Amino acid sequence: MEFFFNPQGIAVIGASANPVKGGYFILKNLMKGFKGSIYPVNPAYPEIDGLPCYPSVTDVPDPVDLTIIFVPAPQVPRVLRECAERGIKGAMIQSGGFAESSVEGRQLQDQIIEISRETGIRIWGPNCMGLVDAVHDYVFSFVLPAIWEKGLTTGNVSLIVQSGMLSAGFLIDIMSNGIMGISKVCSIGNKADVNECDILECLIDDSDTGAIGLYLESIPDGRRFMDLCRSSQKPIVVLRGGKSQKGAEAARSHTASLAGNWAVISGALAQVGVIEAFDFKQMMDLCRSVADYPAFQVKDNRRVAVLTMSGAAGIVSADFIEQHGLSVADLSKSTVDALKQIYPPWMPVANPVDLWPAVELHGRKKAYNLAFQAVFNDPNVDAVLFHSFVGGPASRIDMSNLVEMAKQSGKLLFGWLMGKRTEAHKFQMKARELRLPVFGELYRAVECMAAVLSREELPEPGSSGIFLTETTSDKTRLEKMLTDATGSLDEYKSKQILSLCKIPVVEEKIVSSASEALEIADRFGFPVVLKGLLPGEIHKTDLGLVRTGISSAEEAAGVFNELHNIMSYNGSILLQKQIQGDPELIAGLIRDPQFGPCVMCGFGGILAEVMADSVFAAAPLNISEARALIGRLKTQKLLNGFRGFTALDRNALADILVRVGDLAVAFDQIKEIDINPLIVCQGKPVAVDATIIIKNTMA
Amino acid sequence: MEFFFNPQGIAVIGASANPVKGGYFILKNLMKGFKGSIYPVNPAYPEIDGLPCYPSVTDVPDPVDLTIIFVPAPQVPRVLRECAERGIKGAMIQSGGFAESSVEGRQLQDQIIEISRETGIRIWGPNCMGLVDAVHDYVFSFVLPAIWEKGLTTGNVSLIVQSGMLSAGFLIDIMSNGIMGISKVCSIGNKADVNECDILECLIDDSDTGAIGLYLESIPDGRRFMDLCRSSQKPIVVLRGGKSQKGAEAARSHTASLAGNWAVISGALAQVGVIEAFDFKQMMDLCRSVADYPAFQVKDNRRVAVLTMSGAAGIVSADFIEQHGLSVADLSKSTVDALKQIYPPWMPVANPVDLWPAVELHGRKKAYNLAFQAVFNDPNVDAVLFHSFVGGPASRIDMSNLVEMAKQSGKLLFGWLMGKRTEAHKFQMKARELRLPVFGELYRAVECMAAVLSREELPEPGSSGIFLTETTSDKTRLEKMLTDATGSLDEYKSKQILSLCKIPVVEEKIVSSASEALEIADRFGFPVVLKGLLPGEIHKTDLGLVRTGISSAEEAAGVFNELHNIMSYNGSILLQKQIQGDPELIAGLIRDPQFGPCVMCGFGGILAEVMADSVFAAAPLNISEARALIGRLKTQKLLNGFRGFTALDRNALADILVRVGDLAVAFDQIKEIDINPLIVCQGKPVAVDATIIIKNTMA
Repeated sequence: MEFFFNPQGIAVIGASANPVKGGYFILKNLMKGFKGSIYPVNPAYPEIDGLPCYPSVTDVPDPVDLTIIFVPAPQVPRVLRECAERGIKGAMIQSGGFAESSVEGRQLQDQIIEISRETGIRIWGPNCMGLVDAVHDYVFSFVLPAIWEKGLTTGNVSLIVQSGMLSAGFLIDIMSNGIMGISKVCSIGNKADVNECDILECLIDDSDTGAIGLYLESIPDGRRFMDLCRSSQKPIVVLRGGKSQKGAEAARSHTASLAGNWAVISGALAQVGVIEAFDFKQMMDLCRSVADYPAFQVKDNRRVAVLTMSGAAGIVSADFIEQHGLSVADLSKSTVDALKQIYPPWMPVANPVDLWPAVELHGRKKAYNLAFQAVFNDPNVDAVLFHSFVGGPASRIDMSNLVEMAKQSGKLLFGWLMGKRTEAHKFQMKARELRLPVFGELYRAVECMAAVLSREELPEPGSSGIFLTETTSDKTRLEKMLTDATGSLDEYKSKQILSLCKIPVVEEKIVSSASEALEIADRFGFPVVLKGLLPGEIHKTDLGLVRTGISSAEEAAGVFNELHNIMSYNGSILLQKQIQGDPELIAGLIRDPQFGPCVMCGFGGILAEVMADSVFAAAPLNISEARALIGRLKTQKLLNGFRGFTALDRNALADILVRVGDLAVAFDQIKEIDINPLIVCQGKPVAVDATIIIKNTMA
Repeated sequence: MEFFFNPQGIAVIGASANPVKGGYFILKNLMKGFKGSIYPVNPAYPEIDGLPCYPSVTDVPDPVDLTIIFVPAPQVPRVLRECAERGIKGAMIQSGGFAESSVEGRQLQDQIIEISRETGIRIWGPNCMGLVDAVHDYVFSFVLPAIWEKGLTTGNVSLIVQSGMLSAGFLIDIMSNGIMGISKVCSIGNKADVNECDILECLIDDSDTGAIGLYLESIPDGRRFMDLCRSSQKPIVVLRGGKSQKGAEAARSHTASLAGNWAVISGALAQVGVIEAFDFKQMMDLCRSVADYPAFQVKDNRRVAVLTMSGAAGIVSADFIEQHGLSVADLSKSTVDALKQIYPPWMPVANPVDLWPAVELHGRKKAYNLAFQAVFNDPNVDAVLFHSFVGGPASRIDMSNLVEMAKQSGKLLFGWLMGKRTEAHKFQMKARELRLPVFGELYRAVECMAAVLSREELPEPGSSGIFLTETTSDKTRLEKMLTDATGSLDEYKSKQILSLCKIPVVEEKIVSSASEALEIADRFGFPVVLKGLLPGEIHKTDLGLVRTGISSAEEAAGVFNELHNIMSYNGSILLQKQIQGDPELIAGLIRDPQFGPCVMCGFGGILAEVMADSVFAAAPLNISEARALIGRLKTQKLLNGFRGFTALDRNALADILVRVGDLAVAFDQIKEIDINPLIVCQGKPVAVDATIIIKNTMA
């Protein structure tokens, strides 16, 4: 892939001398900063802007390892083949008219994929804006040269953007606003060959890149994407379009992307430490924040000091800090004492630190220096948020000095800025140079601080060290049960399988007569439950086949007979001990088209309907990963012991989730596992009902 | 109050000839645009900048009805008295050093309040930035003249800002960014006399004001504030600081404001149609949006068409639209047919409408005109969101034409903008002139659209038309019970009171012997509950005094004796029919220090703990207001019939809430009412347990 990013020579096929055409822009953009050889190819011109122009790529001299193709789609297969024959390694096809447009376009795209396979030439695009590399000053694109008219704003954020129009919009906005410094912006278009994973892999290894932002509408190769993110030391931010039903429909028609199960993808991304963005500029704000503090690790101490000139802005900052799970730092005595030196005697020292009265008394410089030094030295402070009102009183801040102090203290420094438009812009530009994240909206400033402060080390992936079954005979039995099974297994069979995998299931037994029901019920103790199981029947309750609260052996015998009648003496009857507990959970497994087998865990019963609190992770999991998954449930309160209930044994639940994942990984024929409810009884989860669905092998 | 906003003549006490002093800025700011007389007062100068300067306010000629005082705090009482004697009606005291600073300052503030009471002179401030009126070009303030160096950006949004520093920051930011047009910005400081309600009243009547934004840390006169908001035809947006615990602490030390019960205030504001903001710029964005569409009423149709040049931005827009409770419009056949004329044949027409291919085929002008006309004519569309990439391809938009089309169609038009910094700024300025709300962040654009589209007519306030009690004898009995009562009433007495007010309560009876328990239990039917009531005891359950699930008459008799023993034959024993139902609700009443008696309604049981879904409204309520209150619960799903449960009879619940409010309004001695649980049984709520707390009359 190196030839895409650092080619020695580039042939521009479809170069033009017409100064309003894309074929001219490509040349102009290359001439701006590309240091290698540039070879315009077009039989119509002997030279363009002083560069010799070649009738065909065959005539281009060495060195040439990359081509940018910008001729009408129908000509592309022919020139692509010529390029491959000429020994060119990579082609950025920026022309449109392929799979995104028509049936003929899709055929053309299939042809170029075939040429790539045959000859080994790699294809970036088609239908893309190419690459902008601000650090190297490379613009491999037909975008308007206007984007770099004031220079490229250099930094360490790289972007991968599926949509061409959007990447152009991003570029223009970013470059002219100068708030975020860019390393590489990669517009990957139809992804005929090179896809987001290929580029992500390059950017993870790119020494100019500190953080990577991606706009995606689908993640077709979910597992490779996850592996790359997991291996990355660099923070990765993803904005996904198509989360809502209407958004997903639009995505389908935009890039033929199947948006997929949003909760599954969110889970998979969280599992590998990806930060999720929800809006375009917010994604860029998150990117520049995490890029500037890539390895910040405060663990459980997220204590923020706020330095402001406005009490009101301090108050609202405190509200936001608490809202984001950070805490307003309790200043240490030494900080309080230091601030007392500059505060008027009537004013209590507190955090947020309102500096205005101190500035009035002692001047800006003295008050600022003393206050910032105090909070940076404070062992109770992990991060500092300062406010600046540019163009207002005492607005000049020695940013270099602040950044230096922050660096020496090892603490996070973020700023919120409001004030005069031009001065604020200058402030932003200076802040960008100093890698100081500064924001125009207070909420965003705190949100981005929280993104940095909340980055946690991922649990080590790898084997759970758990054996799915206890003995070789259990293993043989499990294999036999799953080999013989088809379709939707009844709850008894499903739980037998779970039980073989050492997942705790409720005490239960198939009873074949009223007298056996009577006897077993007595042995289990009351209340008990009787259920009629009919092959393939999944609506037991609706048919009156579930009877709970049976409180005597005689009743059990009676109900047995009733069920037998309802089922016309078919099926079988299951007697269960009725268990009480709280909360009611759900666990399960689905196979996602993008991310493969994924373990699910969530709340059941009435809570499932009102809160929709369930989380997913790609299987297999180990215990640490399973515990992390449990930790992502929103309603932690219910797990920590509640109204007299014992706290959940998280290891016991994690063990179940690991086994569910391992089971599905070991047996590919399992399509779905649904344990519902999984009742937590004295802290221990027990599977009370379950369904395992086996793939239809006939299909 | 008119003299504060449109004085005939202003005496500036503490005027200065020193060009870096606030006392000079005030004069300079007045000379900028104030058309009335300006009288500098300072014995040190004969004239300042050509204006005759007076040694004392006594020497100032007519007309003079307002003074701006900017002398050190200790001199303020003396000059204020002189002003009152001179016949001046209003004083804006912009000096600091009063209650916000020290004990002496507080005493000075008390003195000026006393002078105001004695003489009738009204005081604005002290410790404030005064008033900026962009429409009249008035700057009655010591703020740096820099804020208007490029002119004041005129519009119809007025702001009331408690914090002086913040209002200065707002002003500088707003004026230099030019995104929002301003009518009046009022910085009210310590509110010694004139407060947010006084100013709000003026702004509601102000013909230059279309919407009002307030930053507040407390709303001491909650009821007057509510009445004003309710009476206002103009939308009102409030940002409250101090919502979190730490934020509230900071508010206490900032303006000595008691932030109050956040849920109560939110409820009271929602009740009178106030829009709540959470951040500073977001507040301004909301203000300018609702100001531009003050009376937009689409009721239940919130169908949005999105016109974009980027499929990706369209997808993300659709996600945001669904997230905000709006809907992505299903375009009518005529719109689809119209768009087909400009779409390439391979491309399906859908909403979001991706115009890029059409622009490539037919040019910007034709594609835009046809597409916008089609959606504005579409009966299935209530609002249009367009995207503009300024400085990118086909970025020029004829905004005036769009605004004209929108106006003719009666539809909402909002824009999202990204692109080149300078061009985007120009676009914003032009949009402001046209009153077209345009935003730099896509999420914000949709959020503000939702704020406009979700404005609903408030239910008419006024009497419920309900009689609290049925008969005169009931009324007499109720009065007697409440007159005799003190402290926390036991559940039986509390429910007797509720029952007299025709609130449905569970069937229950005090039983005085085991045999009575046996007999009554049999009459009620099983299961029943027995509860031991001890005077003043509120932890019945902890003492083992609550016994549920009693399933026979004999058991009832036995439990009676047990309870009698535990209570050592004191107290009384209550027998209740045990009822089942879902969901479990809570209703009640509290007296809030800022908003008085407020009715509460929420979910009980486990849901109360995990969702904290409860809502408040100021009492008295009528049925429509009570129904609106119920409609503000987040978890509507549980009320609409759920898993086979009957849907809640909303009128029955509303009736209970009305009665709870009326009861507290009629009887001032009621401090608190707590009905918990209020179980919904076959759709009808029934009070199962309740506590009424009576104010301690001894205190």
